[in-house]
Amino acid sequence: MKIYRYPETKTWPDLVRRPVFEREEISGLIAGIFEAVEKDGDQALIGFNKKFDKAVTPQIIVSEAELENAEKEISEDLKKAIQQAKENISKFHASQIVETQKIETVKGVTCWRENRAVEKVGIYIPGGTAPLFSTVLMLAVPANLAGCQEIILCTPPDCNGDINPAILFTAKLCGITKVFKTGGAQAVAAMALGTESIPKVYKIFGPGNQYVVAAKEYAQRYGVAIDMPAGPSEVLVIADSKAIPEFCAADLLSQAEHGSDSQVVFMTTDFKIFTETVEAVEKQVKKLPRNEMAGQALDHSLFILVNSIDEALEFSNLYAPEHLILALEDFAPYIPMINNAGSVFLGNYSCESAGDYASGTNHTLPTNAYAKNYSGVSLDSFVKKVTFQHLSKEGLKKIGKTIEIMAEAEGLIAHKNAVSIRLK
Amino acid sequence: MKIYRYPETKTWPDLVRRPVFEREEISGLIAGIFEAVEKDGDQALIGFNKKFDKAVTPQIIVSEAELENAEKEISEDLKKAIQQAKENISKFHASQIVETQKIETVKGVTCWRENRAVEKVGIYIPGGTAPLFSTVLMLAVPANLAGCQEIILCTPPDCNGDINPAILFTAKLCGITKVFKTGGAQAVAAMALGTESIPKVYKIFGPGNQYVVAAKEYAQRYGVAIDMPAGPSEVLVIADSKAIPEFCAADLLSQAEHGSDSQVVFMTTDFKIFTETVEAVEKQVKKLPRNEMAGQALDHSLFILVNSIDEALEFSNLYAPEHLILALEDFAPYIPMINNAGSVFLGNYSCESAGDYASGTNHTLPTNAYAKNYSGVSLDSFVKKVTFQHLSKEGLKKIGKTIEIMAEAEGLIAHKNAVSIRLK
Repeated sequence: MKIYRYPETKTWPDLVRRPVFEREEISGLIAGIFEAVEKDGDQALIGFNKKFDKAVTPQIIVSEAELENAEKEISEDLKKAIQQAKENISKFHASQIVETQKIETVKGVTCWRENRAVEKVGIYIPGGTAPLFSTVLMLAVPANLAGCQEIILCTPPDCNGDINPAILFTAKLCGITKVFKTGGAQAVAAMALGTESIPKVYKIFGPGNQYVVAAKEYAQRYGVAIDMPAGPSEVLVIADSKAIPEFCAADLLSQAEHGSDSQVVFMTTDFKIFTETVEAVEKQVKKLPRNEMAGQALDHSLFILVNSIDEALEFSNLYAPEHLILALEDFAPYIPMINNAGSVFLGNYSCESAGDYASGTNHTLPTNAYAKNYSGVSLDSFVKKVTFQHLSKEGLKKIGKTIEIMAEAEGLIAHKNAVSIRLK
Repeated sequence: MKIYRYPETKTWPDLVRRPVFEREEISGLIAGIFEAVEKDGDQALIGFNKKFDKAVTPQIIVSEAELENAEKEISEDLKKAIQQAKENISKFHASQIVETQKIETVKGVTCWRENRAVEKVGIYIPGGTAPLFSTVLMLAVPANLAGCQEIILCTPPDCNGDINPAILFTAKLCGITKVFKTGGAQAVAAMALGTESIPKVYKIFGPGNQYVVAAKEYAQRYGVAIDMPAGPSEVLVIADSKAIPEFCAADLLSQAEHGSDSQVVFMTTDFKIFTETVEAVEKQVKKLPRNEMAGQALDHSLFILVNSIDEALEFSNLYAPEHLILALEDFAPYIPMINNAGSVFLGNYSCESAGDYASGTNHTLPTNAYAKNYSGVSLDSFVKKVTFQHLSKEGLKKIGKTIEIMAEAEGLIAHKNAVSIRLK
């Protein structure tokens, strides 16, 4: 832990700096993978499964039987939990559907926007130490609500060539019928380029390691969009004297356990809460199965004593955390002060893991200070808003002169003509 | 013109293909410009103004006196036109502000989103053959409505070191007080990195040539967001037998005059409309001051006879045009069929130039088939939507078990603990 007592604002830019991600090093590797996938399609993916995942996968697509079997392999309790989470996520994301509002800017000039789903979307779900079936919910539920026509999912196989059953069960529950056994940069390449079995998509979603992140960035040169740039996961907790140190510690650790590069920041005005939270973290971390990873994340975590909650929020806006927890008795007055954050958790009972799984909010959020300029994933991420306009002859008459004058002043005479020819 | 009669669908992928943009060639140049701006700041910009724009600009920021004088240099008519356009753009974009809706997904679990403006935004306005003061309106008006705290504008000086007065007048009208004399990739670099006089921004907007486009792409590695990727401007017109060939021709030419790389597509079911539109284009183009550029754009334009309006819309969805004009008597039934388009103009009096200037819609739109996965600029482009949640103890009790089961199944025990510790 790095401990700071009342740091001066001039030191803040150093404190909020995130670890730098070495992109140049791996860019050659990514280009090579894209080239292989473009050239050899499914065969390249089968080869990469063998090479990177030690898996033999004669077929890339998950079979109907595998999807069916998955259901039998997971407990009823887990099924029910996934179902409840899905309901809440559906409810919150459905509330984001906005009715079309037609505006007559001038009599006879009517303008509006309509949502149109991104037709083909690809979801990437990492394998590795945690089977993130919760992320399947977070991406497939809004994709379905938005009306995406084709929703595919790629995830790496284990060494037996299988996919975690909870991922398959959740995918099927969300109506995804095309799941593919491929991971890492090659999965992203396959969704960007298309192969014999994997359709090319228009937008790629989902988390991943630095290879996946770099591949998503690289994929954009093929005209594909991505959900957002990414970095390691983050939480910033602001606590007052009424906060409960054990709760704060548990929240900080639920971030730290994600990986050794997780970003953990704790700020308080209260010295007692400060020391007790440090103690609680040290006590709780020992009992975690992922304590080694969490310990490494804690090594570079920041514990900061501040003069006021206002100051903490100012720091938080500069830091722009993915998750911001206000462990404050009276949090309401501070809400308008929050400018840069992905998702905000208010009060002592709004733990980050509620939003990670089941409250209904999305857990795909901007990291790495991108909360300054990006929103988290929502229904909006799966639609384009198309503008429509209708002008009657009278409407065009009302604004025609304006268009003609402006077009002429910009030297665009054909733009002017398009009006003049209609009004003469 | 390239003329196609009832092309088979298997030929469509070739027909919709856009010209390929050679990005590798100029990437070294762009990196060099960023390096120079990072190292020498304003001095680098002053040097580039001399080198690229033949302009002597001892000071990069436009002075208060220059902003004041601009008003005197433009006609009252133009001022009034800009003012009317501003009102309509304001009206339409203000209608995009959506009220916060709080959702109780489960009793005691309340979730909602709030808009927060991107604090610092930069607007790029190209110089060159057309002084695009209309683009100042399209970007500064929603930025102001969104509540962006810092809105800056960069545009290249002419060879006298001056900025077009209509650009300055419009900037001032929209409340932009910081205008900088710098253009091209170096302007983008300055906004991404910051210099002595130009503040670093969080998001960069605005059109430009291939150097500007490449620089915006490059800028993203510094954590800056951009409005959208870009390519040459486009229009696709679908006409039925009641369309008016002279109107269609004028719309096609108002696209063609943008530049020799403009993309112009005309589709109709009616042979008479087809031949008459071709004739009208050939007649009208001769009278245009920018007829050379328009002629070059027409050389690669597509004029396509189709079997039905349905078929034309299918082609259009594959093409994903920036602007789509439905010159149809009965356009309403076709609206739901439109999936991929930036902005749609309905009927014979909705010319594209209405949306370019004054109807109220935004003219910063996705090109290069990006209408498949991007929206045009709107109020949304200037805000992030931050998620908030509040759980009461009872609320957490209701979903706690779900969170615990899911977290455990993902192997994330600290996530589970954050709930357990609160409920025990």
